[in-house]
Amino acid sequence: MTTSLEPTVVTGPDEGAQPDVREQVTRVAQRAKAASRRLANANRATKDAALLAMADALVAQADRIVAANAQDVARGHAAGLTPGLLDRLTLTDARIAAIADALRELAGLPDPVGEVVRGQTLPNGLRLRQLRVPMGVVGMIYEARPNVTVDAAGLALKSGNAVILRGGSAAASSNAVIVEVLGEALEKRGLPGALVQSIDAWGREGAVELMQLRGLVDVLVPRGGADLIRTVVREATVPVIETGVGNVHVYVDETADLAMALPIILNAKTQRVGVCNAAETLLVHRAVADEFLPAAIAALADCGVTIHGDAATRRLAPEEADVVAATDDDWATEYLSLDLAVRVVDDLDEAIEHIREWSSGHTEAIVTRDLAASERFVAEVDSAAVMVNASTRFTDGGQLGLGAEIGISTQKLHARGPMGLAELTTTKWVVHGDGHVRP
Amino acid sequence: MTTSLEPTVVTGPDEGAQPDVREQVTRVAQRAKAASRRLANANRATKDAALLAMADALVAQADRIVAANAQDVARGHAAGLTPGLLDRLTLTDARIAAIADALRELAGLPDPVGEVVRGQTLPNGLRLRQLRVPMGVVGMIYEARPNVTVDAAGLALKSGNAVILRGGSAAASSNAVIVEVLGEALEKRGLPGALVQSIDAWGREGAVELMQLRGLVDVLVPRGGADLIRTVVREATVPVIETGVGNVHVYVDETADLAMALPIILNAKTQRVGVCNAAETLLVHRAVADEFLPAAIAALADCGVTIHGDAATRRLAPEEADVVAATDDDWATEYLSLDLAVRVVDDLDEAIEHIREWSSGHTEAIVTRDLAASERFVAEVDSAAVMVNASTRFTDGGQLGLGAEIGISTQKLHARGPMGLAELTTTKWVVHGDGHVRP
Repeated sequence: MTTSLEPTVVTGPDEGAQPDVREQVTRVAQRAKAASRRLANANRATKDAALLAMADALVAQADRIVAANAQDVARGHAAGLTPGLLDRLTLTDARIAAIADALRELAGLPDPVGEVVRGQTLPNGLRLRQLRVPMGVVGMIYEARPNVTVDAAGLALKSGNAVILRGGSAAASSNAVIVEVLGEALEKRGLPGALVQSIDAWGREGAVELMQLRGLVDVLVPRGGADLIRTVVREATVPVIETGVGNVHVYVDETADLAMALPIILNAKTQRVGVCNAAETLLVHRAVADEFLPAAIAALADCGVTIHGDAATRRLAPEEADVVAATDDDWATEYLSLDLAVRVVDDLDEAIEHIREWSSGHTEAIVTRDLAASERFVAEVDSAAVMVNASTRFTDGGQLGLGAEIGISTQKLHARGPMGLAELTTTKWVVHGDGHVRP
Repeated sequence: MTTSLEPTVVTGPDEGAQPDVREQVTRVAQRAKAASRRLANANRATKDAALLAMADALVAQADRIVAANAQDVARGHAAGLTPGLLDRLTLTDARIAAIADALRELAGLPDPVGEVVRGQTLPNGLRLRQLRVPMGVVGMIYEARPNVTVDAAGLALKSGNAVILRGGSAAASSNAVIVEVLGEALEKRGLPGALVQSIDAWGREGAVELMQLRGLVDVLVPRGGADLIRTVVREATVPVIETGVGNVHVYVDETADLAMALPIILNAKTQRVGVCNAAETLLVHRAVADEFLPAAIAALADCGVTIHGDAATRRLAPEEADVVAATDDDWATEYLSLDLAVRVVDDLDEAIEHIREWSSGHTEAIVTRDLAASERFVAEVDSAAVMVNASTRFTDGGQLGLGAEIGISTQKLHARGPMGLAELTTTKWVVHGDGHVRP
């Protein structure tokens, strides 16, 4: 996708790459690094004041932002974006007010920077502290959702980092104005505007350059669908935190309280559909399938859910229900829609085996009354979050009490599961001696 | 480099890649993943017993290992390896005993797996625990040092992980026998031998395949020189922890106790030369350069150190000292030898600026009596470890009380500075409810 904001890039006749883009994105990153140094040791009061100023500026300039957004929305209409994407793209005064409120809430959260993670005095008298410090420069690559622009800027600021933003090109006009408004607010508060910069103007090529600025960019957080994340993982030399793909399972065990299991799967599937912690596959123990599935399928159908069932499931479905035959594609799919794959399994082992084969490692739940079964499920399911007798929808920074959330990591390095402000920091060992040398 | 152990690889006429290697390395990783599942929930007693059995087996089979090692050493001689590399490659009965003792020490360390990192009961009654769990499969890529083979196997086992090893091909014969001995010891203890596997047989191509087994391999730890690490960062799609490049600085401030500064720089430069926490550049405040540098250069020269000095340093050097002119290359170089770059700086700002420009972010030290200077240095130097009035040689897992050390991370993601057993683990959220659904 290209946008009207993309500059004409002139390449030399013998050049495969486009040196301008590399040079310009590198310059953006250098400005970000310099700005991050000024922010790294800012105290909480300074950062919170800036967050409040950013919130106020967004509200004050809502007209400008809505006008720019209208251009994006018009372009999106013309390009045939789905209603769901258009809805996520659209800003109104009320939505801008809500986005600004999220910044104000961030101001209320504790500052992760400066926390002493551990410390001790060694037998030789060396005094050790491991301190939480900002990463430096965070790169965010995301899709056409202008609220993420503000969110990412706020989270980066509060955790002491500069941020470089690459939003979906469909939101380029909105993002350009938002970044300008946030930068002005920062400058008014005596902080560098370069703490929040966008590279949308350099399109996909700029994004690829960003992914390779190892040394200048400290971490990349892609936020979006599986394709986006795969691209970033493939192209990046900068360390990446993979987020958000959730092929999420609910397993109803032999001993499950079926009156508990039904609301859990309904909630997990239908409470909100297009999110990564929504259930995509239901596994049911054969011993309770006869009793559970007909009613569960009817209830799910009442909520508009299409069931993709294995043979055993299809046999148990009420005649009026809309059940299609499941294939391996269904086990692999994160629907993000009112669809649910359903399979009857012989036992806990088969449930765990199915999850091992198909899960994306985000969240899985077991509904059971059996202690040993719950313990085996918790121990053997290798996912970021494992729920016992609770909806998968609780895998969320806000729900788990972490405060703001940058995303949900499905990788094992650095952060796993919901990421709060602390996950945008690193640590530094500080060692004080009195002339200590190593014997 | 190829070794006699590399199989003949047959490629189809139209194939650029060699499907055999990919297939075979993938199979190794699948076996490792399956083995890791059996280990993930093993208790400490099981793992410690296996470590002791591995240690005993190495000692019992020292003859076989030394014989295989002799082949590597002979090949190394013929290939003209440097004396330093040959020394690191060579195994003797005494060295094998020391390597085995390191495994026994690992058995004495606490088990990181199962630690509750945080936990609480939420207002809605959900019970949360964030538990430390193994990564799964760890890939280690390192140079021709057979002791690292054992080390890596032991650290991985203790932290509940399977390991896939790719050692330098110059140590292939030694590594093949060591991996066989360790595997037999594991099997005797009822654990899968596939917990410790080598892919040396598939050469460099196998190593590149390993780097791209995202999903099967959970983390890659390259251990070696800058070239090795650059290659891994470029080729890998598996998350990487970058280790060990140390362009390390010692700054002697205006107010330094010069009687303390001299032993610190001598220790940092000469106590052990070929290690990542050894000093490579000395920065001296102009106000104390006249008093400090002549004596310091003489003392360093007495230890055989060649000084690469800027103009001010060269003017202050005693006539008999061996001082060559420093260029930007010297500021950038991790010598790992009896060489030291020396520069006179105008003030703390210039020292910090020099470090920002040239440091690899490993360790820097300040020698000062001024509290404000020490605080600025600690706050503004963005390195894994910052020392005040202590030698840089303390950046070491053993010295900082972390127990065993896998390496020293110079990246900010996941781990920074010395990495102990905990850094080979990740976490898992375990959430217990009573039918909780999200409102």
